[in-house]
Amino acid sequence: MKTITATAMITSAILAFAGDITLPEPAKSGGMPLADALNARQSQRAFADTGFTPQVLSDLLWAANGVNRPDGRRTAPTARNRGEIDVYALTEDGAFLFNPAGHTLTQVNTNDLRAVSGFQGFVHNAPVVLVMVVNRAKQGSGAGDRISDRYAAMDTGYVSQNIYLFAAANGMSSVALGTLDAKSLHTSLKLGENDEALLAQPVGYPK
Amino acid sequence: MKTITATAMITSAILAFAGDITLPEPAKSGGMPLADALNARQSQRAFADTGFTPQVLSDLLWAANGVNRPDGRRTAPTARNRGEIDVYALTEDGAFLFNPAGHTLTQVNTNDLRAVSGFQGFVHNAPVVLVMVVNRAKQGSGAGDRISDRYAAMDTGYVSQNIYLFAAANGMSSVALGTLDAKSLHTSLKLGENDEALLAQPVGYPK
Repeated sequence: MKTITATAMITSAILAFAGDITLPEPAKSGGMPLADALNARQSQRAFADTGFTPQVLSDLLWAANGVNRPDGRRTAPTARNRGEIDVYALTEDGAFLFNPAGHTLTQVNTNDLRAVSGFQGFVHNAPVVLVMVVNRAKQGSGAGDRISDRYAAMDTGYVSQNIYLFAAANGMSSVALGTLDAKSLHTSLKLGENDEALLAQPVGYPK
Repeated sequence: MKTITATAMITSAILAFAGDITLPEPAKSGGMPLADALNARQSQRAFADTGFTPQVLSDLLWAANGVNRPDGRRTAPTARNRGEIDVYALTEDGAFLFNPAGHTLTQVNTNDLRAVSGFQGFVHNAPVVLVMVVNRAKQGSGAGDRISDRYAAMDTGYVSQNIYLFAAANGMSSVALGTLDAKSLHTSLKLGENDEALLAQPVGYPK
């Protein structure tokens, strides 16, 4: 199956602007009913070698952690409204930070990091691996203590379930991977001193 | 608004059987599209004094953590497939453990515990407060260490997001409360030694 891939979009956007990449306007309505998506929700580890269209990448990131209200609040809640979970998209063309406010991507690495996100060899087959990172500076006082770590993990679960349900609703495969190489990702994603990658989640079409 | 409430159902079921309470068959399809539910997802803290029908309670619990496959797997994933998150429903008539396998409730307390689930005074206005509990015995070796606690919190987030999206899709209010009285709930829910209530989430109709 040939598609205009997100990779192609990202590459041309980088060449064109060398700045933040504006994603297409995401679809915020329609598609599979929630109940059917819940019924189809599952972890799937096999991915076809089929890329995403820019629209699908945009819809996926909006579902995961996009803005759904004029005040900037999002599809996924965070404890005390800290908004401390950042989502990175790892693709063939590099690593990109998702900015919910402007629905844009900022490139942070030009290398294909999909294989370093976890120990499972299958990950690099997925066109996109999303990585959820806790930005502890946004958590404020208490960051790093037991309760703040609990909140960061819960808030990661919220985003991750949005991804699972988006995949289920769109006939895609996805699996959450807790055994990621956080140290390597810390360096390659150029994370802040106290930030930590908590979960990796490849998304793609089923093999 | 008068409804045949879940409370009435639960009470009569207890009187009739003095055993587990069988919930109505949940709706596993139809209703609001996922994208619309994501767009409507928010935390809301005001609840009308309107009860749930037994069907709504059943649909809510299935969405939260129900079985969606013949092998017993659920709408919410758990790390290493441990299934370590238990959901309790606190109502006017007592506290009930949700059993996903049979889609039944087991009463664990006859008191109204809605007010003890958190410090926020508004909670008792909601007809149902769901409480997510980590059953550490199900986590196996490593339970209680940093990584296992992280997984328990993430897995709680998955369930909680299902509840949020169910509420959004059905015109209901809900809010996740991390500042719950875990010690009191440990006693009143008769939890196992290493089990811990991690999150309370009232669900109801908007005020």
